[in-house]
Parts: sequence; structure tokens; C-alpha cells
Amino acid sequence: MKRYISWLAIACMTAAAGLAQAGEPPAGIPEGMGALPSTVPVPADNPMSAAKTELGKQLYLDPVLSKSGHISCNSCHNLGTWGVDNQARSIGHKWQRGGRNAPTSFNAAFWSAQFWDGRAPQLEDQAKGPPMNPVEMADDSEEQLITRLQAAGYTPLFEQVFGKNSLNFDNMAKAIGAFERTLITPDAPFDLYVRGEGDISAAAKRGMRKVADIGCTACHSGPLFTNNTFQQFNYGSDDGRKSVTGNADDDHYFRVQSWRNVAMTAPYFHDGAVKTLPEAVRIMAKVQLDTILSDADVVDIVAFLETLTGTPPQVTYPVFPRPAGHALNWQD
Amino acid sequence: MKRYISWLAIACMTAAAGLAQAGEPPAGIPEGMGALPSTVPVPADNPMSAAKTELGKQLYLDPVLSKSGHISCNSCHNLGTWGVDNQARSIGHKWQRGGRNAPTSFNAAFWSAQFWDGRAPQLEDQAKGPPMNPVEMADDSEEQLITRLQAAGYTPLFEQVFGKNSLNFDNMAKAIGAFERTLITPDAPFDLYVRGEGDISAAAKRGMRKVADIGCTACHSGPLFTNNTFQQFNYGSDDGRKSVTGNADDDHYFRVQSWRNVAMTAPYFHDGAVKTLPEAVRIMAKVQLDTILSDADVVDIVAFLETLTGTPPQVTYPVFPRPAGHALNWQD
Repeated sequence: MKRYISWLAIACMTAAAGLAQAGEPPAGIPEGMGALPSTVPVPADNPMSAAKTELGKQLYLDPVLSKSGHISCNSCHNLGTWGVDNQARSIGHKWQRGGRNAPTSFNAAFWSAQFWDGRAPQLEDQAKGPPMNPVEMADDSEEQLITRLQAAGYTPLFEQVFGKNSLNFDNMAKAIGAFERTLITPDAPFDLYVRGEGDISAAAKRGMRKVADIGCTACHSGPLFTNNTFQQFNYGSDDGRKSVTGNADDDHYFRVQSWRNVAMTAPYFHDGAVKTLPEAVRIMAKVQLDTILSDADVVDIVAFLETLTGTPPQVTYPVFPRPAGHALNWQD
Repeated sequence: MKRYISWLAIACMTAAAGLAQAGEPPAGIPEGMGALPSTVPVPADNPMSAAKTELGKQLYLDPVLSKSGHISCNSCHNLGTWGVDNQARSIGHKWQRGGRNAPTSFNAAFWSAQFWDGRAPQLEDQAKGPPMNPVEMADDSEEQLITRLQAAGYTPLFEQVFGKNSLNFDNMAKAIGAFERTLITPDAPFDLYVRGEGDISAAAKRGMRKVADIGCTACHSGPLFTNNTFQQFNYGSDDGRKSVTGNADDDHYFRVQSWRNVAMTAPYFHDGAVKTLPEAVRIMAKVQLDTILSDADVVDIVAFLETLTGTPPQVTYPVFPRPAGHALNWQD
């Protein structure tokens, strides 16, 4: 408790200093913490362009990607709810439930692997998963999906971005990946605080120090609050990364989730079984760090995590291509 | 055929005149046809305001209106596909199908009754239907829905628009109705043509005359291409308006659908069983007017109907209120 109070004192002084000299980063920020990076990594074979992100936006929001015509990327990664659907496990084709909680698409451009088990190295690989997943969009084949995109009228939109005869599964994924690189949430209260442009509450500052002191930030480290590794989480019956690698050493290993916008992405964990952030904080401290948090500590940590809620991207709802005078052939 | 050709000649001359004198309405437009009105009727008890339409937009796009958290107004009346979902019958709660084809929300502000059977006098009444419909959003009660909106954090947004203690079912419907009054699609090629600002094809002009000559525009009349009445349509087994009034005289009566954006709202009719516009045109001419159209006439009429596709509204995707650190209680 002594150390906790001493850090609190530092945090209070820092806040006063921050208010006195706007633009000066406050002292006392735990090592590694910082504002959300202003640039995202972009793969060499998928450069960004306005036309490509616009096409990606259409594909992201258009339920034409699903066999039924009912499910879009946005169904489970809703732009209005921080890139998630706030469901424990998402509703997919014929009301089937997904196997794991839908991770947010917001800031996913920063992760070095996608999915809870990291089975996709980057956004382009991830985007190919749900269309082919029988409990999600349930397309029978890539060919079936591409034929439907052609029938909808996507061919000229692809050709404008990727050139002649370019409507294919790889380019679909590239366009979606490019759009997802725009789903970044800067300027969280914490970001303003570390840049000396705003303040956070005393409770949030206590929480900020607490997560460093007890060791959360060994994995939830840096400005992204994830070190982009896989770590064992002995909670629930899900094999995690072992189901991808077949390696017993990967049993119950999961990608370390970022804390960015974590307050807005309930429910929690890979099974979505934990409905509140305080409960998630308690469980993580106990399971990962063998630490029983006091009620006051939980309040402070949650107050800190809430300062990591950024500013969502502004997206204009697109018009989707459709053939004049013809219905598409949806299937159940 | 003579008359048809003579009108074509007039239309051609008109087009030339139109090009020569931009801004001059061309001659030869059948009586009553005109550009989409620039104002919509607004009920005295629900005046428009920017804050109200913004709230209505959130409610329209937010799946929080459904018991499952999966279905929004936009699921079946998608802003990206001209206010419809292009399904024969929409997918609702637990993948149940609706009883009739989802009518478009675009320009619905102009109709004097809502739903195929006109059971709702205006948008505000219509908006109350789907939340309570067990095959659509499936809320158990208005109270359950309002409690969920409160839990999501909608209270201050309602109070900003409607005043203290105003989060209730009536005001929810008013906000959605106000938003829907912004879903207007002006500046179709036909509108530009009648305003002397653009041209339409020779085929479209032939089709324009044809629909007047054979009598389609007795009901599909005026700038809205509907006279906002109920008419008998002896097609299919649906009772239509009789199911609302209980009156045998209303058997198989349906609201006359507007032709505005009809090319983009396939499939057709109250059962959504007709997949193409040419087929719908043929059936209507036969069933309503006892007229067998030639293939050439169908091509011309479809060309004309395609000129009624307007400019969809630009909508910025909203952020929905959600409680920090808490999941809502969705139910199946």
C-alpha cells in the first residue's frame, strides 16, 4: 500500500504540472505507456489508396458477402459499437453462434496476428475467414462468393482499384484490410493526458500505476497495451492457439488483447462469458498474476481503462452496387 | 402503335429542345408526372430538428432495438440498398422470415399510409411495429425495449430532444419517423429531364408514354408515381388490407407502391416472389390492365422505370450509446 500511495502522490503532482504547462507530457507515466501511434503498419503488397478504402468500406458493410444476404462484416464488428457486437458469441448464418467472442476491428491494424488464436498473420488473411465459415457468412466456396460480387456489380469497382480482371478473393480481402487500417481510435483521454493536453481523474491515475505495479503491463505493454504475443490464460475449456499449431505447449494460449477501447467491448474474454469490466479485471489479476485485488483497486483500474476509450472513425454509409431490376440469389 | 410513335417523335423533339434550352421543361410529359417534391409532409406533433433526426438515425441503425441485439431497422431497410434488403421476405428474430416483402424506407415520408396493407397511418406508427413483431425484433413488451434503451444510455439523448423523462416508446417512434423524413432520393434522371436539366434515353421516353397510354398511371400517378390509394391486386393468396379492416371489400387490396427507385428494390410484390422488374411489369399489365405487353414495350417501360432511381441520402454512421464496462442483456 505504501508504494501505491507514493505513486498516487506523484500522479497528483504530475496532474498539477500538466495543468500548469499544457503541451508538456506529465511525469510519472509508467515506462512504455504512451499515446496511440499516429501511423499503422501497411503491408508492401497492399498500399493504401482512397479508392481502395472506399471499396473496402462497401465490402465491409455489404451483406452481399454472406450466402444469405443477411450477414456483413459489420454485423459482428459494428462501426457503431466500437468494432464489436457486444454479444458473448456472435449470431451468424441461420442464427448459429460463433465459437469465440468477436474481437474488435478497431485498431486491429496494429496487431501482429489476428483472431484470438492468431491463426491469421494480418488483416487481409483475417478477412478471408468469416465468408468461408459455415457458422458466419457460410459461403460454399470462394467462387460462389466472387460470382455473387460480380452479379451485384462489383467488377468495375475492383477494376478501378486493382486493374483488369481483378475481382477475386485476394483483392476482396486486400480492400477490406485497407479499410480496416482506417478504423483507428485516437485521442483517448489517456492520450491527451500523456501529451499534456488534458487530464484524467485521480482514480484513473491510481489505476494507471496499479496496473504497472502488479505486473499487468508486462503483457499489456506499450502504447497499444499489448505486446502482441501469445500468453497462457488458464480459464475456460478453449484450447486457444493449440488448436492452430497442434503444439501442446500452446494449450490455452491466446493473443494478448489490447486495452484500447476495452470499456466499450463488453462482454469479455474469448468466450464472452464475463459481462463486466470489473469482473474481468478481477479474474485476470487472479489467474494471470495470482493477485486478489481490493474493491478500491478494481475501481481505480477500471477508471484507468476507461481513459483508453478513443475517438471512433467517422464513416459515411456507402451505397452498395446492385443490378438494376434484378434480385440476387440468396440461399439459406 | 401510331400513337406510340407519335409520342416518341414529340419526345425526341423535346429532348433536342431541352438540350438547346437547359432549364426549360420539355413538352410531352404525360399529365401529372413531375419531379420529386422538394418538401415532405411533417406531422404537427413531430416537428423536425437536427438533434431529433440524429437520435432517429442512431435508433434506426442500432440493433439495440431488438431483443437479440442483432436486428436493427437497417437490417431490413438497409441505407446501402435503397431502404430494402433485396430479400423476398426479410430475415428476423431467430432467422424467422417476415410475412411480406420489406417495403423501402426511402421516400416513405410521402406515403399517406405505411405497410403493404396500410395498417399504420404514418411513419411514427410504422416504427412501432417491427420492435413488437415476434418474427422481426421480437421484443416482449414496450417496457422491455425502453428498459434496454435506458441501460444502453439513451436517456440523455432523448432528454436533449424531448425534455425531462422523455425516453418512451412514442418518442422513440417520433425520432425514427423524423429521421426517415430525411431519407429522400431527389434528382433521378427523370427529375433532371422534367426540369430541363438532363435527358433520358429514347427507350425511356417511349416507356414514359406507354405507361400513360395503357393506364398504369391511373394509380401510379403524379410525381410520386402512386396515388396513395389501396387497389385490388388479384395475385397470390394474401388477403392484403382485408386482414386489417376485416372488410370483404378490402380482399386483396394493397397500397399502390411508388415507382421511385423501383429498379433498385427487387424482388417484387408483397410476397417478393418476382425476381426481375421486366417480369413484374408484365404481370402488373396483365393482372391490372388485362394487357399483354410486347417484349419491346417491356424493355421501354423498364428503361423508363430505371430513370426514377434518385440520389440516396448521405448518412454518417453514428456511434451508439453503450454503458462503459457492461454488456447488455440480449435474449434469444
